[in-house]
Parts: sequence; structure tokens; C-alpha cells
Amino acid sequence: MSEPSLLRQLLDRQEIMAMMAAYTRCADLNRPEQQAEVFVQDCRVKYHPTGWIVGRGALVEALRTALARYSNTSHHLGNIEIDFEGPDSATAQSTVIAWHRRTDGSEWTLYGRYVDRWIRTEQGWRLAERELRAAGAVGRDAGQLPPLGRAFVALT
Amino acid sequence: MSEPSLLRQLLDRQEIMAMMAAYTRCADLNRPEQQAEVFVQDCRVKYHPTGWIVGRGALVEALRTALARYSNTSHHLGNIEIDFEGPDSATAQSTVIAWHRRTDGSEWTLYGRYVDRWIRTEQGWRLAERELRAAGAVGRDAGQLPPLGRAFVALT
Amino acid sequence: MSEPSLLRQLLDRQEIMAMMAAYTRCADLNRPEQQAEVFVQDCRVKYHPTGWIVGRGALVEALRTALARYSNTSHHLGNIEIDFEGPDSATAQSTVIAWHRRTDGSEWTLYGRYVDRWIRTEQGWRLAERELRAAGAVGRDAGQLPPLGRAFVALT
Repeated sequence: MSEPSLLRQLLDRQEIMAMMAAYTRCADLNRPEQQAEVFVQDCRVKYHPTGWIVGRGALVEALRTALARYSNTSHHLGNIEIDFEGPDSATAQSTVIAWHRRTDGSEWTLYGRYVDRWIRTEQGWRLAERELRAAGAVGRDAGQLPPLGRAFVALT
Repeated sequence: MSEPSLLRQLLDRQEIMAMMAAYTRCADLNRPEQQAEVFVQDCRVKYHPTGWIVGRGALVEALRTALARYSNTSHHLGNIEIDFEGPDSATAQSTVIAWHRRTDGSEWTLYGRYVDRWIRTEQGWRLAERELRAAGAVGRDAGQLPPLGRAFVALT
Repeated sequence: MSEPSLLRQLLDRQEIMAMMAAYTRCADLNRPEQQAEVFVQDCRVKYHPTGWIVGRGALVEALRTALARYSNTSHHLGNIEIDFEGPDSATAQSTVIAWHRRTDGSEWTLYGRYVDRWIRTEQGWRLAERELRAAGAVGRDAGQLPPLGRAFVALT
């Protein structure tokens, strides 16, 4: 790639990482409408093994309901990997440590991985698809969460 | 912005992130003097709801006293957001998972957010202001910590 | 440095961070062969105070044995600091929160720091040396882990 293209890609990467951070910030401030603005209108999101949430309207309702179960949450991203498919779309993965305190005072922590597709829109980079996979959970039955797909390798 | 300006801003961003990392490294090595060098001389820092620490001298003493309570700490940053106000100043936010083991062996974990102002000095980017807000805490009364300001939204 | 050199260094930084993320992803998916591909053939790796693992072949075996102890792991990086020694080598540090669930269901969490040396190869940036240091651990005797080297400063 030419130097201007390489620079542009670093800037795109930076913009996507800023949107990833905004997602977590809005979650932890309990602002589901703002959190959903990170997504395109016709987004697809999967937080549970049972299926996909389709569209930003349904997503706002799902986020509102989910966040209302908690008095506190803290989402913390790491290990961000972004692979551009072309100038206007990218796949991405990241890991999340998400600590939750329920309104009854009990806690649970998710060790998760987001598997994303991002696209460039007129408003900037937005999430077209996000799938959560759980490496594990403490304080909650991980069977309720989509699995990470860790290899099982028996030692012989 | 021109390409040289865009490149410069990516480099500035990188320098600020390096200083953020140095802050945590010096904290976990219990080096309060080095940790305070991340700040400008006339910095303002807020770790407690009761008020601001003003100036690097007072900050060194506050850090020394705070770190001496622990045999181990581990500060872990994520979700870094940096917004430039001009070529020489920026606001920034980041989240921190800070695990602490007190000298009596007990532990607590902070799920926090730093709200910063950074300025460019002759020595490079330095922290002019840092305010800690707590999303929550485990093993410590979160009422002793400045709150994050999470929205309370009752479901109807 | 010239603008092309500065841009090149930002891209190198990005490539190293991507390899750091791949290391954690392959660990959590229990793919020791893929995880070891992040390293050069004649790498040196230290996870225990007792000594160094030398060479990628020995590393694959060590990773396979270590990962087989767990049903789940989640490695989460932060505070990445990369310092270039020249165009083709760099030292780096990062912190890791590594949560582990053993096959017996018990858990432990590492609060660690990786101290690395990276070199540019024909295949891209690879790890020549990685040393783990532990800020602390929960659910495991930290005496089994290489210490971070926190200063002990008695208050007078």
C-alpha cells in the first residue's frame, strides 16, 4: 500500500477502537440509546446462544433490559485485533472483562470475546455485527453464554 | 487536517498512551516519585470524593502513603479515548482494573475510570489533571470513592 | 526521524500489538502450536522462577502441558509499552490479567507483566524473548511465580 493508504488505515483503526471504547463507556453509564448508536440501523448482535438480535430498535430494548438488572457494571477491553477486508469494512476481535453487580448485590464476571464486523458509514465506522463468545464466567452459569470454542486436547 | 498533521496526532496519541502505561508501571513497582513525573508540576488530582490534591509535591506524598498500604498492586488500563483540543492539549478517558493486596493480606479490586487532561510540555505530554471515578469496587466500600455517575433508569 | 520512518514505526508497533493479541487468543483457544508461532525458532521464555524454556519445540510442549491443566483460560493484555532499539528489534512490556479455571473446577488469577524482546523476521515481528513477572496472584501461591520486583518502602 502507498503511504497515504497506510496512514489512512491507521486512522481507521483508531476510529474503530474509539467506537469500541464508546460502547463500553455507554454500557457502564447505563445509556442504552447512546450505546446502540455505535451500531448501524440494520445490525445483528448475539449475546445469548439462543439467537440474534436484529436491528437497532430491538437492540436498544435488549440493552435497556439487560442493564436494568445491574446497579454497576464495568466493561474492560483488550487484545484488539482489526483486519480490513477493504477500505470500508473490517472484521475485529477483542476480549472483554465485564464485571457486573446485580441490583440484589450479587456479582458476576464475564471473560468474553467480541467477534465483530465493522463498516464505514457516512457517520463514521459503525458495528454491523457483534457476537459475544464466553471464555468463562464467575458467579454465573457459563452454559447460558455462547461458548468460545476452546479446543479440547487430551494429554496422552 | 493535512497528512503530516494526521501523522503527528497519531504520534501524540501514542506518546500519551505510553505515559498512561508508565503511570501504572510505576504505581505497581511502588515508585511514587517516578509515578509523579507523569504529571506537570502544578497538576490537580482527585482520588477521593473529599477533594483535589494540588501540585506534584503533595501528589508524591499522597502516592507514597497510598502505596505503602499494599504489598502488591496491579493496575490494568483499557478503553483509552483521547480527544485533542488543539495541538498541545487533550482530554482523555480510560478504564482501570486495579487489584490491591493490603499489607494485612486482604484484597480489594477497583473498577474505575480516569478522566484526564493532558498537555504538551518541553519534556513531552504530561498529565495536568486526573480524576478517578469508580464504576464499583469489590472488597472495599465504594462509598469512599468518587462515583462514576451511572444513570438510574427504572423499568416501567 | 523522517515522516516515512515515523509512519513505519507506527505500523511496526501495530504489527507487534497484533502478535501480542494472537498469543493470548491462541492460548485461550488451547492451540499451543499456533501460540508458539508468535515466537522465533530459537526463542527463550521464562514462566517460572526455576529457569528458561529454550527453543520453539520445547515451548510447544511446555504450553501444551500448561494449557491441559485448564478447562478455561482468559488472558487480557493492557499497558503495552514498546521501545524500538533499531529498525528490526524492540523491547516491550505489557500487563496481563490471566484468569484460569482448572480441570478440577478451581480458579486462579494472575496479575502479571510480560517483559519482551521482539525482532523483525522475514515472516514479520516475532517474540525472541518473553519473561513473565507476577505482580500477584489470587488462588495460587505467588511464590511459585517470578516476582515483579516491587520496591519495599517502609514509611518512617
